[in-house]
Amino acid sequence: METLGERKIIELILEELELMPNMLVPFGDDVSAYPLNKGELAILKTDMLVGKTDVPPGMSLWQAARKAVVMNVSDFAAKGVKPLAILVSLGLPRSFTSKDIKEIGKGLNAGAREYGAYVIGGDTNEASDLVISLSVFGIAKKNKVKLRSGARVGDLVAVTGFFGKTTAGLKILLENLKANGEIRKVLVGSVLMPRARLKEGLALNETDAVTASIDSSDGLAWSLHEIAKASNVGFLINQLPVAEEVKKFAEVNGLDPLELALYGGEEYELVVTIKPELWSKAETAVAKVGGRLLLIGKVIAGKSVFLEVDGKRYIVKPKGWEHFRGGNV
Amino acid sequence: METLGERKIIELILEELELMPNMLVPFGDDVSAYPLNKGELAILKTDMLVGKTDVPPGMSLWQAARKAVVMNVSDFAAKGVKPLAILVSLGLPRSFTSKDIKEIGKGLNAGAREYGAYVIGGDTNEASDLVISLSVFGIAKKNKVKLRSGARVGDLVAVTGFFGKTTAGLKILLENLKANGEIRKVLVGSVLMPRARLKEGLALNETDAVTASIDSSDGLAWSLHEIAKASNVGFLINQLPVAEEVKKFAEVNGLDPLELALYGGEEYELVVTIKPELWSKAETAVAKVGGRLLLIGKVIAGKSVFLEVDGKRYIVKPKGWEHFRGGNV
Repeated sequence: METLGERKIIELILEELELMPNMLVPFGDDVSAYPLNKGELAILKTDMLVGKTDVPPGMSLWQAARKAVVMNVSDFAAKGVKPLAILVSLGLPRSFTSKDIKEIGKGLNAGAREYGAYVIGGDTNEASDLVISLSVFGIAKKNKVKLRSGARVGDLVAVTGFFGKTTAGLKILLENLKANGEIRKVLVGSVLMPRARLKEGLALNETDAVTASIDSSDGLAWSLHEIAKASNVGFLINQLPVAEEVKKFAEVNGLDPLELALYGGEEYELVVTIKPELWSKAETAVAKVGGRLLLIGKVIAGKSVFLEVDGKRYIVKPKGWEHFRGGNV
Repeated sequence: METLGERKIIELILEELELMPNMLVPFGDDVSAYPLNKGELAILKTDMLVGKTDVPPGMSLWQAARKAVVMNVSDFAAKGVKPLAILVSLGLPRSFTSKDIKEIGKGLNAGAREYGAYVIGGDTNEASDLVISLSVFGIAKKNKVKLRSGARVGDLVAVTGFFGKTTAGLKILLENLKANGEIRKVLVGSVLMPRARLKEGLALNETDAVTASIDSSDGLAWSLHEIAKASNVGFLINQLPVAEEVKKFAEVNGLDPLELALYGGEEYELVVTIKPELWSKAETAVAKVGGRLLLIGKVIAGKSVFLEVDGKRYIVKPKGWEHFRGGNV
């Protein structure tokens, strides 16, 4: 894995697969689709949480199980689709007790209900690692699934929150970096109790303002490059929203807050491109459901992602935090 | 896991889940369902293959990946539903090479295409074990999903093939038991290249003859007890179809062929109960698609499963081969 990397592995497997004719959502986007009657699509998504790479020290089993749901729901949020039903496939180490299992059950249920879905089935197996593999089902209208590929030059770029908290939180949990009381709580909390921006994603999808959408689970830089690649565009980011707590954490620990915000991961904000003429409609829709839409830049020609700070342009690299042990790619 | 057992774990998790209202396929059956428009159901299934418990020595990665598909398709076959699309979530050890990954990709594709389905998405992760977690999607008419719960006293009991081959094959692969040339090939082959009885399951579902259905992946005895429990009936099995190769293998190794046939696993025959008046219709339907429907007994009152041999009745216990290392439950 380390030598090959996730993206290379996916590429190798894709080469071996016979493609379903008329795929309405292409491989590599955040969900998959199968056509139903009357212009509807079955939306399907699977994502696996693995103990040793996705569960940092300090995260309870309840939190890990809930996080497995959030990871999957976040992709539904990015596509603007409501998750309806969840199947759970568990790999459990032999050492797990009844109490551990109950905690996992409670966490799964809490995550599902938090986003209006139900766990409706699954199976369980013995494994060396804790493995929580979920598959999520939803229904969408044919042209109402927001892909990565629709961004056009001139579109605005926006996100649903401030960045860098989970990266800072992970550095506290994994590398024992310093942070005092309240700040530590916020940063670590962002890792242990992530939230999917489902309300925001559904509200945005109602407006028809969004041209491309992704979540930031592999980091903001990575997400921007994914949209850039799928849409064949570039980005100029000139208002990078770094969380206040991250600025303070960076100062105390001698880190670059922009790096923390750009090259993070395990962060579940939405990253969207918006038709300029529908900006205020989109902003209002997100505000109505209690969220925020933050303008961070615009779509430009080319394939590069630039960050502009104090009038200077920097290249944003296509890298992110690929799991705790995998390091950056 | 060993101390708790799969069934206990599932029970513990179920206690923590809030049930979706109006579940049309209950928890514990082989697939799950979500209502679509016009009396249709989305049929969903997830099942995980784990290297250390599901891949015996001698099985290639291509075969393991294909088996992961067969395991899932077999449950669709039992319910009489065509699998349409498959999502794959992979956990891969770091040591895996490009060649290994390609082999997995080829095996997944071969399995999917063998049963008319396509792999349409997935994700990949690092894990200690090989983990191939599939989720399968299909569409069924509301009253055309064959549950475990419909068997009635007087129904006939039938299976789609002869039993004991995989158990004997696993004993050859795992315990080095003896078998000569051709017999060894058949028995080991049944483990390495299992086949789901999809054609048979779909053909049976067309007839309306089936009242309850399950596959025999946890062994014939276990499957009969599962239908017994769900349908609140008992069974009298008086024509247990033991494969010829298994009889010979049992003789050479001093084993009981009936035990091998009853208490096996990793065997993907269908076990169905049939309305007596529609028996020949069912038999013909299966024959038309190139399969066989073997009458093995009948549904009786009570909760016990009996085996009748030479006029004597024996109790069939609710046990099976629960994975290679888990031992019998």
